[in-house]
Amino acid sequence: MEKLHEECGVFGIYTPEDSDVATSTYYGLFALQHRGQESCGIVVNEDGIFRSYKEVGIVNDVFTAERLNKLGTGKMALGHVRYGTSGTDGRLNAQPVVVNHIKGHMAIANNGCLVNSYELREELELQGSIFISGSDAEIISHVIIKERLNSQSVEEAISKAMNKLKGAYSIVVMSPSKLIAARDENGFHPLCYGILEDGGYVIASETCALDSVGADFVRDIEPGEIVVITKDGVKSVKDHCKQVEPHICIFEYIYFARPDSVIDGISVHQARVKAGECLAQEHPVEADVVIGVPDSGLDAAIGYSRESGIPYGIGFIKNKYIGRTFIAPGQKTREDKVRIKLNTVAETVRGKRVVLIDDSIVRGTTCARIVKLLRDSGATEVHLRSSAPPFVNPCYYGTDIGSRDVLIACNHTLEEITKIIGVDSLGYLSVDSIPKLIGKTEKCGYCDACFTNNYPTEIPGERVKRRYEQKISEKCKR
Amino acid sequence: MEKLHEECGVFGIYTPEDSDVATSTYYGLFALQHRGQESCGIVVNEDGIFRSYKEVGIVNDVFTAERLNKLGTGKMALGHVRYGTSGTDGRLNAQPVVVNHIKGHMAIANNGCLVNSYELREELELQGSIFISGSDAEIISHVIIKERLNSQSVEEAISKAMNKLKGAYSIVVMSPSKLIAARDENGFHPLCYGILEDGGYVIASETCALDSVGADFVRDIEPGEIVVITKDGVKSVKDHCKQVEPHICIFEYIYFARPDSVIDGISVHQARVKAGECLAQEHPVEADVVIGVPDSGLDAAIGYSRESGIPYGIGFIKNKYIGRTFIAPGQKTREDKVRIKLNTVAETVRGKRVVLIDDSIVRGTTCARIVKLLRDSGATEVHLRSSAPPFVNPCYYGTDIGSRDVLIACNHTLEEITKIIGVDSLGYLSVDSIPKLIGKTEKCGYCDACFTNNYPTEIPGERVKRRYEQKISEKCKR
Amino acid sequence: MEKLHEECGVFGIYTPEDSDVATSTYYGLFALQHRGQESCGIVVNEDGIFRSYKEVGIVNDVFTAERLNKLGTGKMALGHVRYGTSGTDGRLNAQPVVVNHIKGHMAIANNGCLVNSYELREELELQGSIFISGSDAEIISHVIIKERLNSQSVEEAISKAMNKLKGAYSIVVMSPSKLIAARDENGFHPLCYGILEDGGYVIASETCALDSVGADFVRDIEPGEIVVITKDGVKSVKDHCKQVEPHICIFEYIYFARPDSVIDGISVHQARVKAGECLAQEHPVEADVVIGVPDSGLDAAIGYSRESGIPYGIGFIKNKYIGRTFIAPGQKTREDKVRIKLNTVAETVRGKRVVLIDDSIVRGTTCARIVKLLRDSGATEVHLRSSAPPFVNPCYYGTDIGSRDVLIACNHTLEEITKIIGVDSLGYLSVDSIPKLIGKTEKCGYCDACFTNNYPTEIPGERVKRRYEQKISEKCKR
Amino acid sequence: MEKLHEECGVFGIYTPEDSDVATSTYYGLFALQHRGQESCGIVVNEDGIFRSYKEVGIVNDVFTAERLNKLGTGKMALGHVRYGTSGTDGRLNAQPVVVNHIKGHMAIANNGCLVNSYELREELELQGSIFISGSDAEIISHVIIKERLNSQSVEEAISKAMNKLKGAYSIVVMSPSKLIAARDENGFHPLCYGILEDGGYVIASETCALDSVGADFVRDIEPGEIVVITKDGVKSVKDHCKQVEPHICIFEYIYFARPDSVIDGISVHQARVKAGECLAQEHPVEADVVIGVPDSGLDAAIGYSRESGIPYGIGFIKNKYIGRTFIAPGQKTREDKVRIKLNTVAETVRGKRVVLIDDSIVRGTTCARIVKLLRDSGATEVHLRSSAPPFVNPCYYGTDIGSRDVLIACNHTLEEITKIIGVDSLGYLSVDSIPKLIGKTEKCGYCDACFTNNYPTEIPGERVKRRYEQKISEKCKR
Repeated sequence: MEKLHEECGVFGIYTPEDSDVATSTYYGLFALQHRGQESCGIVVNEDGIFRSYKEVGIVNDVFTAERLNKLGTGKMALGHVRYGTSGTDGRLNAQPVVVNHIKGHMAIANNGCLVNSYELREELELQGSIFISGSDAEIISHVIIKERLNSQSVEEAISKAMNKLKGAYSIVVMSPSKLIAARDENGFHPLCYGILEDGGYVIASETCALDSVGADFVRDIEPGEIVVITKDGVKSVKDHCKQVEPHICIFEYIYFARPDSVIDGISVHQARVKAGECLAQEHPVEADVVIGVPDSGLDAAIGYSRESGIPYGIGFIKNKYIGRTFIAPGQKTREDKVRIKLNTVAETVRGKRVVLIDDSIVRGTTCARIVKLLRDSGATEVHLRSSAPPFVNPCYYGTDIGSRDVLIACNHTLEEITKIIGVDSLGYLSVDSIPKLIGKTEKCGYCDACFTNNYPTEIPGERVKRRYEQKISEKCKR
Repeated sequence: MEKLHEECGVFGIYTPEDSDVATSTYYGLFALQHRGQESCGIVVNEDGIFRSYKEVGIVNDVFTAERLNKLGTGKMALGHVRYGTSGTDGRLNAQPVVVNHIKGHMAIANNGCLVNSYELREELELQGSIFISGSDAEIISHVIIKERLNSQSVEEAISKAMNKLKGAYSIVVMSPSKLIAARDENGFHPLCYGILEDGGYVIASETCALDSVGADFVRDIEPGEIVVITKDGVKSVKDHCKQVEPHICIFEYIYFARPDSVIDGISVHQARVKAGECLAQEHPVEADVVIGVPDSGLDAAIGYSRESGIPYGIGFIKNKYIGRTFIAPGQKTREDKVRIKLNTVAETVRGKRVVLIDDSIVRGTTCARIVKLLRDSGATEVHLRSSAPPFVNPCYYGTDIGSRDVLIACNHTLEEITKIIGVDSLGYLSVDSIPKLIGKTEKCGYCDACFTNNYPTEIPGERVKRRYEQKISEKCKR
Repeated sequence: MEKLHEECGVFGIYTPEDSDVATSTYYGLFALQHRGQESCGIVVNEDGIFRSYKEVGIVNDVFTAERLNKLGTGKMALGHVRYGTSGTDGRLNAQPVVVNHIKGHMAIANNGCLVNSYELREELELQGSIFISGSDAEIISHVIIKERLNSQSVEEAISKAMNKLKGAYSIVVMSPSKLIAARDENGFHPLCYGILEDGGYVIASETCALDSVGADFVRDIEPGEIVVITKDGVKSVKDHCKQVEPHICIFEYIYFARPDSVIDGISVHQARVKAGECLAQEHPVEADVVIGVPDSGLDAAIGYSRESGIPYGIGFIKNKYIGRTFIAPGQKTREDKVRIKLNTVAETVRGKRVVLIDDSIVRGTTCARIVKLLRDSGATEVHLRSSAPPFVNPCYYGTDIGSRDVLIACNHTLEEITKIIGVDSLGYLSVDSIPKLIGKTEKCGYCDACFTNNYPTEIPGERVKRRYEQKISEKCKR
Repeated sequence: MEKLHEECGVFGIYTPEDSDVATSTYYGLFALQHRGQESCGIVVNEDGIFRSYKEVGIVNDVFTAERLNKLGTGKMALGHVRYGTSGTDGRLNAQPVVVNHIKGHMAIANNGCLVNSYELREELELQGSIFISGSDAEIISHVIIKERLNSQSVEEAISKAMNKLKGAYSIVVMSPSKLIAARDENGFHPLCYGILEDGGYVIASETCALDSVGADFVRDIEPGEIVVITKDGVKSVKDHCKQVEPHICIFEYIYFARPDSVIDGISVHQARVKAGECLAQEHPVEADVVIGVPDSGLDAAIGYSRESGIPYGIGFIKNKYIGRTFIAPGQKTREDKVRIKLNTVAETVRGKRVVLIDDSIVRGTTCARIVKLLRDSGATEVHLRSSAPPFVNPCYYGTDIGSRDVLIACNHTLEEITKIIGVDSLGYLSVDSIPKLIGKTEKCGYCDACFTNNYPTEIPGERVKRRYEQKISEKCKR
């Protein structure tokens, strides 16, 4: 079974008394939906009895009032949204993983990707272990349960397990009486917790999920930390695993997280505005209006506008009614003519020199179409600025990179790309500017391996690495 | 049966050869979805055989690939999206209305509201006519069919019928061999047509629907005009009904239409930017940032920012995954705490004096909640500006006004409203500024009766009027 | 639009106080489901307000608890199940038809087929009338409403309308304050009423629907009679239209109705047992066991067994779990091998001479398959007996006959059919025996035109007749 | 997690070449649907890649054409239908269980109940094993996989595992290249195999499933036998576990299996007819007609009729359109009046002395209702005969017994029951007659512990036994 890339969202809640934790988790998952749209799941813990439902689909489709009602009330709940790689069985890999073991039930939800999952799995299978899915969450649960047999507590078992896990993971574990959060020692992916008015606690991938249930942010879970929530309050376990420099994924700021979230003290919106400002400094141009590709290019467009003094405008209207079952135009359709998902606001760009801000350039085909729309609407010049550097290396920590031989930056020079996309000029954010996004003056505390090839951990063994690398074109391997 | 307010969207297509007109109409309706989300319908005409499907729900839910496939191909199709007033049977009132008569099939889709529908209906019923729904479209179809018996053509029947219809209507009629558009003599609601690359034609409520299928805009249907599309091309019928001054609904610009549409030569986006500029002139304030309530307040916020020089910022993130079946928080939830549908970008407003632009203030409760969110996120001052004047009179031409005794502007003074909503200052766009939105220097060519009580037509008789007026609070009647 | 054959079921209920009439109608329609599985509908009348829902599908799928709940309570309800001819729009033609006219709402449900529907429709269309569907029910409602303008009451309008309607119809009409049943003067299709414990009344196509809601049978509606149910009780209108000899459809007994129903005083089960007895007399054979094709051949099999003295056995098991969405085996499957819907009880037939009773032989292909199954299970001889005579003429009164050029009896001699089906002997019930089924000694009081070509009414005009006849093969026209 | 009673149906198919094994399994499960309606599942094996789908619901609802299509083609498939005990998570416990282990994939489907499942599970959990569901199938898969580590083949692992499993199980196991059937040494539940025309093989719980796919019955799997199907044909493994006297569950004949199935050489239909004959001998009565409660009482009714000479009649019509989502009548309904699911054929029983045959009497409430229906329809006497002896002991081998304190036979004498049900006389089949049902002259080869308390195996330990016994009323424990 193929190893899965799991950029996901996790959400856990603990309330002092039985309450409608299922619905709170439902709201929390709504706020995290952008982190994964393939499948979702909620597990409710009512005095040690676990009721769960997981299914392929987005939260709004999977969880009906009837379904939430069946999950019932409890003191704790755990939820997950998952991004799925095509070709895998989304239903089987949906989380949280819920297992029964000698001490009762345990549920686990994970965001991130282990670099030694193959080694761990093989070791377990040689002891006769059985696996149902291909998810790291299941492997982690096996490792924890094995350790549980010789541990005094779940947190002790998790602590021991963390010494075996390598790579990226932000997990939330629910035992019959505890809700536990743990983040790998590099802190690749975000994880934080907040407090509710009634004294309950919420753990979430991003702060926007705390906001969604009215929880006040307390703090981020630190890299390598275990936070244990019980009826006696919050307990922190640190210093149990090796100390390393933190490496928060820079792509969380540039692309993945929601602009209203704050990760490790830095506003995502602000990081993007900063990226726009840096772009304006690095790649200035004379123009009449700055527009962003909605939704993720808007923040950087504001930064570019502010730094350059060129007015900010609304360049596009995105159709918000297009859902999962939308029937895309067929081959016969003149794709460059139809404007179903995105239309230009012609008034904004007609007769203007336009700076167009996008968060990244992947295949380049979408960019080329958008540029054509702008020109058809009367833009006299189009200057494209990307708020991320060229993305050229595989990510082993959770970001799915697709088939890399189609990545335009791996296969073409800047000049070629400018031509292919059809813009008057093109500028990428430089790797050197990245520290500024999070208020640093030099590279420190983050992972930018996808741009730089500098991996902060050992990387998967040859067998696995080969699979990743098959996806990278020859040109990129230099 | 209650008279229905029908702010809706219409779309018709005519292609020289049989083609997938159902799917084109599907895309057109997507672009018009903002004009009505209660029900939608498509009718395909294949050589005089009409196949139709109408159902309650949005286009994305109602029309599956299987459903579109069943509609098949043809030379023509007609589509409709409808806004429904609560309490009426949405399924029964879905359009297009498809009827069989002595000359074959006819389908009709309408946007607008007649002021003499009761009189017309009674007259018909006294001749033994039967009605299935409460829609004006059905009444109009009866009037046309009656005239058809003594007319040489459908367009002649439509022309005669138009002399009986009073009020607002933008209709598209599909006969076995013709696609016909007609707009009431006041031109209350928009209607335009465009041309396809293959020589086909498209009729739509807004230009954004032409864009969605790659049609090039030709022109607006003129008030009182009938445009007939057949295999021989486009024919215009004018001067058949009385000439009056045009009265395009100003609310189309302020609120209803999509910003990327152009109505009667004026960009909707531009009209809103202009409204923001006027607001900045009429109600200036010292502040640090201008933000708009998404999505309809964003254009005016840019106008306010430009005119005032106060920086534009992104103040909110709207959750785009919340759909029709979303389970809203119950009574128990502290509504002012949870931020599910809308969250603030705290970074933008913390420690700032904020100008908040909304397109209108209706009940005031949503505004109050939003203002509280801003203050909780650290805004030091909040100055609310409404890009529409106070809305105090019933609309007889198609805009549903709800129960008016809850309209805050009808029941409170400006000072009271400022206090209720909890803002530091409040300013409405003045009625005098309205001409500027559409590039005029004085009141001319538009209807603003909802703000001014100046109705451009006779209004419904006492029996009907009373029903409308029961909805208006005493205070408003002055 | 094609004229539709409507063998259907109707159900109406009137209760003294508001009650859950929707659910009662739901149960009534369940009992009548065998009369039509294409679409169904229920209309509830709460003090003159009509709420309705109609959809394609069987009662169990169309009416959910939520849907019934939305229909609410009332004093009256009207329901309908409809058999659909392929190729027509089932949704459009679903009943009851609900209309609004000058006096308020009216709903109508019909079982039967007019012979002058084309003439009536043309007459109405020439007056400017509009039709939505192709159903007789809609035509009848137009005729009634026209008469209503000059009548003192609905029943008077119905009475006048009946003088214009020719052919077969069993209608139930619901006005704001009345529930009315009417049956054509020939009484082609059944219609009866019963009384509820609380003093309410029920009208239904068959007595089994009275049983389903616990109503006690009162009596059949007589041919040509109108029965009016109001708060003042039951009133009968007779002698208002011309008196003719009654002609109940004999196929109701042989095939259509449920065995537990009693029609015009005759038990359907008993009529079928009698058919089996007659078959035993007309076509005796030496055999070891008599089996019926489930479900409709079982009653006659018992009759054959009783009369012949040959033991009755259970020859087949029918899979009761196969529903509407069952995926039938494809072309590749050896159809004579797989036994999905029907399997033999080998123990019953192995080494035996079998008499096989079926209710009719249509194309012969199903029969041939069943006979092969029996032989494969070890039957040494198979003697097929059909409890209906050969079906060779079109029915203009409501029974859909499909494409007649494939009817085996129209195209082959008895000897040929015996060979094609692969039986050792074959016998049809003789036309002369038909009177015995309903306890008569000679032909009287029923219609057997489909067997004999003796139509009790004028038949449709040339234009329509031609359409019917195109379906009949040349051989049958002699 | 509660131990589940699993009366289920299993189906496996092996074809020489890739074929549409999913659809064949779909048909096989249709034939076995009567063995379990809670959930169902299909796993397709295409060259070692397993694709599966399991869901709550019946086969017709769970498997759509699209769903079957996604399962694709392969050489092997495995299917399961499951009977669910209320209160358990049907989705989690759906089968087949599909696992990944060191040697690849394995799928397992089971019918039956282990008596030592708690002991096995505890032993595994103490080694750190994790369980997802509460099913025996999952436990069995763990035991097999553990043995697999030190075995040369799957069949060797299964053989070793069988020496650890106690109680009832009929399993089908699918490995990447083998399809394997195994039946516990007592042979509690049926399992057989057949051959397809193309040389493929089918394994199924009952012969009716072989018939459904056109397979020819080869033979039953013997108690204690393992049958291995590979590309090299069929191999049998015997003598690997201890030899005991066979104990086929007698309830399979009386109630569970389909009448057209043949189990261990005995026709189920014939066994039921025999039960009816024995009843006629043991409990004769003077009467006019014998009727059976559909569907399971019909076979015995024929036996009673034949032995007694009293005519067989059709006493009831069962509504075949009532599905899963049927809305049952509420409390307010006079239950003894409404005849929705079952109606009497009054003609059959009016004025008659009726012998009523049912397959078992559980709570007695349904019987009482049916008897009342018969009397209301005019039956002068009703004599009830049950083709099963009183059911008074728990079954540990797979038959769910519900809460036993409501079983009428546990709580009342024959006289009391006669009175409660309201019959003129009552007779149960005697335990002594049971051998005759399967052609024996004395008790031998079957399990009748539910009637006699004679368990052929050790029974579950105290902890588990207590749970079962809590369900039995005090009266029954003697």
